[in-house]
Amino acid sequence: MIVDLEARVLAKNDARAAQNRAWLAERRILALNLVSSPGAGKTTLLVRTIRDLAAAATLTPICVIEGDQETARDAERIRATGAAAVQVNTGTGCHLDAEMVARGLTALDPPAGSLLMIENVGNLVCPALFDLGERAKVVVLSVTEGDDKPLKYPHMFRAAALVLVHKIDLLPYVDFDVSAALDRAHHVNPRLTALTVSAKTGEGLADWYAWIRAQHERAAPAL
Amino acid sequence: MIVDLEARVLAKNDARAAQNRAWLAERRILALNLVSSPGAGKTTLLVRTIRDLAAAATLTPICVIEGDQETARDAERIRATGAAAVQVNTGTGCHLDAEMVARGLTALDPPAGSLLMIENVGNLVCPALFDLGERAKVVVLSVTEGDDKPLKYPHMFRAAALVLVHKIDLLPYVDFDVSAALDRAHHVNPRLTALTVSAKTGEGLADWYAWIRAQHERAAPAL
Repeated sequence: MIVDLEARVLAKNDARAAQNRAWLAERRILALNLVSSPGAGKTTLLVRTIRDLAAAATLTPICVIEGDQETARDAERIRATGAAAVQVNTGTGCHLDAEMVARGLTALDPPAGSLLMIENVGNLVCPALFDLGERAKVVVLSVTEGDDKPLKYPHMFRAAALVLVHKIDLLPYVDFDVSAALDRAHHVNPRLTALTVSAKTGEGLADWYAWIRAQHERAAPAL
Repeated sequence: MIVDLEARVLAKNDARAAQNRAWLAERRILALNLVSSPGAGKTTLLVRTIRDLAAAATLTPICVIEGDQETARDAERIRATGAAAVQVNTGTGCHLDAEMVARGLTALDPPAGSLLMIENVGNLVCPALFDLGERAKVVVLSVTEGDDKPLKYPHMFRAAALVLVHKIDLLPYVDFDVSAALDRAHHVNPRLTALTVSAKTGEGLADWYAWIRAQHERAAPAL
């Protein structure tokens, strides 16, 4: 019976996610769903990404939906960049769902052709199951977490289109084998694109921005 | 209706946890439930703890229940120390529950007066809600995760008796204010005990072992 209810919860979520996806497609908005463990550096990466893309002036405005159990800290950090952001607090909840994102879209009203970043609750488990209507899930894996994580949390790496191996500036100080981590990620998901980045030093970010632009061109082709 | 079902799932879990607690109390076994984000270093800390306590010969055998979505890697790392360990795989599940721990206890059959370490699935959210029958939850917070985590994931810090601020050997390389993190942890849970440790350098581990011994004396008083 619990399994039945879980299936019904997921089916209801999937239907709402499909509505979000249609709404975003009509407006040619690229939506990315950033997922990771707590503290993998999603917000820091977002702040730098927004600033760098704004400086390059190659994209229309970026809007952000921030998910956290409590506090509005992350939305405040995003707003300090000048980007529009709404904070969704999930309380004891462990993930964003499509209905929360729908409410976020109503509050933000992102312009046509823009980029929507959804920063999920820091949780490498539950958000894997919930489609929000995004074009792709981007999983951020900090090198401080260990290179075995793709095998131990395979559902998230299977659900993602891109893995950003993050905080590579810390590689000299931790035991993390990048090629072993990527082999393991590709073992659970052979189609996963992988990039190594540091929001602190900027290393690898050009590749991340190129990936975003390629996704954006597919979501919002020149008219 | 979903809230009702959640309440029933939790009530059923709590009843099973109470049975575990009684079973452990009869055998004077100290059970600790280690929780954290993925990659905070729980297994590394456990491996060193088992080796150091075995060398000090101050405790009876240590048994370990390892929770992960997939793989038996962590149980294998524990067994390499000589300690008995069982691996519980949760599949898409995001936490250990009391029934899984009951099955682990049957498989391990830990001796009277021993120490049982339960390493939960790496998840700073869901395991906060599930009592396993342990004496205390110990939350491990890596300094690589950021000093705002107690505010953003307050339920786990509220549920825990002890926070181990871990990987302090990395403090020179990350932006992490230990006293701010502890202020925030005490804001959400004024009764939380806090220790700063590094399993790599050994710094602070003597305090962690003293805390375990004090808990052990309460669980297994000398006859």
